[in-house]
Amino acid sequence: MLSWLPIASASDFSIHNLPFGIFSTANLSDPRVGVAIGEQILDLAAVADRAVFDAFLTVEQRDVFRRTYLNDFIRLGRPVWQQVRSVLQAELTDPESVLRSGSDQVLVPQANATMHLPVQIGDYTDFYSSIDHASNVGKMFRDPANALLPNWRHLPVGYHGRASSVVVSGTSIKRPNGQQLPKGEVLPVFGASQRLDFELETAFVVGKDTPLGTSLTTADFDEHVFGMVLFNDWSARDIQQWEYVPLGPFLGKSFGSSISPWVVTMDALAPFRLAGYVQDPTPLPYLHETNPLPNLDIQLVVGLTPGAGGNGAEETIISRSNQRFLYWSQAQQLAHHTVNGCNIRVGDLVASGTISGPDRSSWGSMLELSWGGTEPIALVSGKTRTFLQDGDTVTFHGYAEKEGIRVGFGAVSGQIVP
Amino acid sequence: MLSWLPIASASDFSIHNLPFGIFSTANLSDPRVGVAIGEQILDLAAVADRAVFDAFLTVEQRDVFRRTYLNDFIRLGRPVWQQVRSVLQAELTDPESVLRSGSDQVLVPQANATMHLPVQIGDYTDFYSSIDHASNVGKMFRDPANALLPNWRHLPVGYHGRASSVVVSGTSIKRPNGQQLPKGEVLPVFGASQRLDFELETAFVVGKDTPLGTSLTTADFDEHVFGMVLFNDWSARDIQQWEYVPLGPFLGKSFGSSISPWVVTMDALAPFRLAGYVQDPTPLPYLHETNPLPNLDIQLVVGLTPGAGGNGAEETIISRSNQRFLYWSQAQQLAHHTVNGCNIRVGDLVASGTISGPDRSSWGSMLELSWGGTEPIALVSGKTRTFLQDGDTVTFHGYAEKEGIRVGFGAVSGQIVP
Repeated sequence: MLSWLPIASASDFSIHNLPFGIFSTANLSDPRVGVAIGEQILDLAAVADRAVFDAFLTVEQRDVFRRTYLNDFIRLGRPVWQQVRSVLQAELTDPESVLRSGSDQVLVPQANATMHLPVQIGDYTDFYSSIDHASNVGKMFRDPANALLPNWRHLPVGYHGRASSVVVSGTSIKRPNGQQLPKGEVLPVFGASQRLDFELETAFVVGKDTPLGTSLTTADFDEHVFGMVLFNDWSARDIQQWEYVPLGPFLGKSFGSSISPWVVTMDALAPFRLAGYVQDPTPLPYLHETNPLPNLDIQLVVGLTPGAGGNGAEETIISRSNQRFLYWSQAQQLAHHTVNGCNIRVGDLVASGTISGPDRSSWGSMLELSWGGTEPIALVSGKTRTFLQDGDTVTFHGYAEKEGIRVGFGAVSGQIVP
Repeated sequence: MLSWLPIASASDFSIHNLPFGIFSTANLSDPRVGVAIGEQILDLAAVADRAVFDAFLTVEQRDVFRRTYLNDFIRLGRPVWQQVRSVLQAELTDPESVLRSGSDQVLVPQANATMHLPVQIGDYTDFYSSIDHASNVGKMFRDPANALLPNWRHLPVGYHGRASSVVVSGTSIKRPNGQQLPKGEVLPVFGASQRLDFELETAFVVGKDTPLGTSLTTADFDEHVFGMVLFNDWSARDIQQWEYVPLGPFLGKSFGSSISPWVVTMDALAPFRLAGYVQDPTPLPYLHETNPLPNLDIQLVVGLTPGAGGNGAEETIISRSNQRFLYWSQAQQLAHHTVNGCNIRVGDLVASGTISGPDRSSWGSMLELSWGGTEPIALVSGKTRTFLQDGDTVTFHGYAEKEGIRVGFGAVSGQIVP
């Protein structure tokens, strides 16, 4: 597929991708729905005005492109997501497209746009589905010989996160205060976290409501999931370690989580599916995978840029991981999440948990990369880090690539401020 | 204060109360804002049409009474909550009130109304603030000699719950399926929970947004909290026990939580304030209480009615507890929740955790009342229970009473279905 629009071959936003997001500009100050293409954004409200969706969307339905979140568009259902995407692919490759003449009225340079939170998030859930991450944490905090807890290989362990503090890429993250128990002490102290960390994750966005009391199977995944984003589950390890027994992480996480602004559809990611882990023991029947290719080959890259002053603003790639390192697939997460009858709603965010691979170069948190703060991470500037310092910026990139086709997420980025 | 409207002296919904809720009827099919008074509901949209709020609410502001959730009303702020309540008290006690003639146009019998979820809940948080409950659970599951974990007396332990599955009183609760580890086994099994329980809780409703990155103190409580509801945090103990390490409760809770439909304002509860626990050790400064009366004297009663068939439908009162048994006050919960900069939003629900008192008669869950299922609870019908059976209905009542003044919550009730 070749577009009449110039698109760099290395662009995350190829004609094969077409991710959805919410943008505004100085002229279009009300946030609205856009689709990323190359270095541009297709303004879907303006595109709809050229009648290209009239065959399958009513006037009322076309109004979803003027909303401040994607939720109403997503609620139209998978056939509509697919039709919109395929109409846009057709128009962008058709030299005679109605979008081409006066294209400056339907296209906005990404450089001129402000991106907003793409979905209104009802609930945000965080899983813990990377076996290497769970093993690393278990080795550090519990028993190296029994790093995984007894339930880990039987179910995708997960917990509820805070939805209110999920922010879009580019939002600064304020170093949190909280209680910490200094090593060897019995009384906690209060202060700014000294062990501030990122967690390399992805998340999927729920695409269809379920009623309370119903369950989904792994086979329901395609119909019920809209797309994916990159996800940084910022973590204050010292606060977390003191508070987390027995009810799990709370203030060690709820000060902020960052997501990338473009939601890449599961349809765009379909060519990059691959086999999952061999799961031993075999999970209970409700977790059986019906998709022979339940996992995804998505490259994940973590860059750390020291902030404050001088010439230190050089990025070091400190981890290269991959979505394929998830032991529990997204479809298994969905089946598990709803097996008790818990309802899900359009816009809910379901995150993977930190994605670490088997090699140290692929670990997805500073906790792991610095082995609990004992082995500093070298940066290209000659500096080192165990945990994040004020002014540091963490940026994740994610992309799938195969046979010259690239489908990327862009970036999720956030800077630590005091 | 005496009303021209007949109100039974034992009514939860006295002239001193005036709780807010969302109701509909056959004629008023769009849910809207009401205030409970005696056995009636004041239809606030109809009340507003009689111009009693015109002195302090604009036309646009008065439209909040036609919304399907209280959130927009709550967003108007505490001075408005107080003015609306005091105008209603004045009108209901004034024999010449404009509400009195043609009062059938502003009043709806509660018996004819359907109650709805009162607020759109952004996030729901559950604390664990009763020392007797935490001690009981610790004794059963861990070490009787060290029942409380090291952090418990230093901070109000809490976790994020599932907002999507919070339902209004009267909604049936479907017995959840899930993984459980049978006693003495190493492999989990799948099936319906066999240890289904209630948790006697209350929750407060957030009344004012905060921006991400800001913290509240205990002194901010009055301005930032709108009111309270009764809260049943249904729990599947077998699912919970297998899944909860290391990230806390998840599917053992997320199948449903029930709230009472009427939100009792903190202003109505103010006369029932009393001193809190003597906290030892003294908490860190950010948790210091500024209110000398941080706790509340609210009687809490739990009734269990066996369901299925015959004459078994007789209620047994199985627990009498009190809001005063909370070791950590609501203001301390709020200060702790936001100390890391976590933002809160109007409509967020912050629950107390199970409220158990020192005596067995005041314990707030069947897990405690049957001591882990080993000591059956006797019902008036001659039946016994360790955990809930299909058809059982659990009903909480809550009320504060003092010097002839009664301010009650009504009930939160739910029946277990297979």
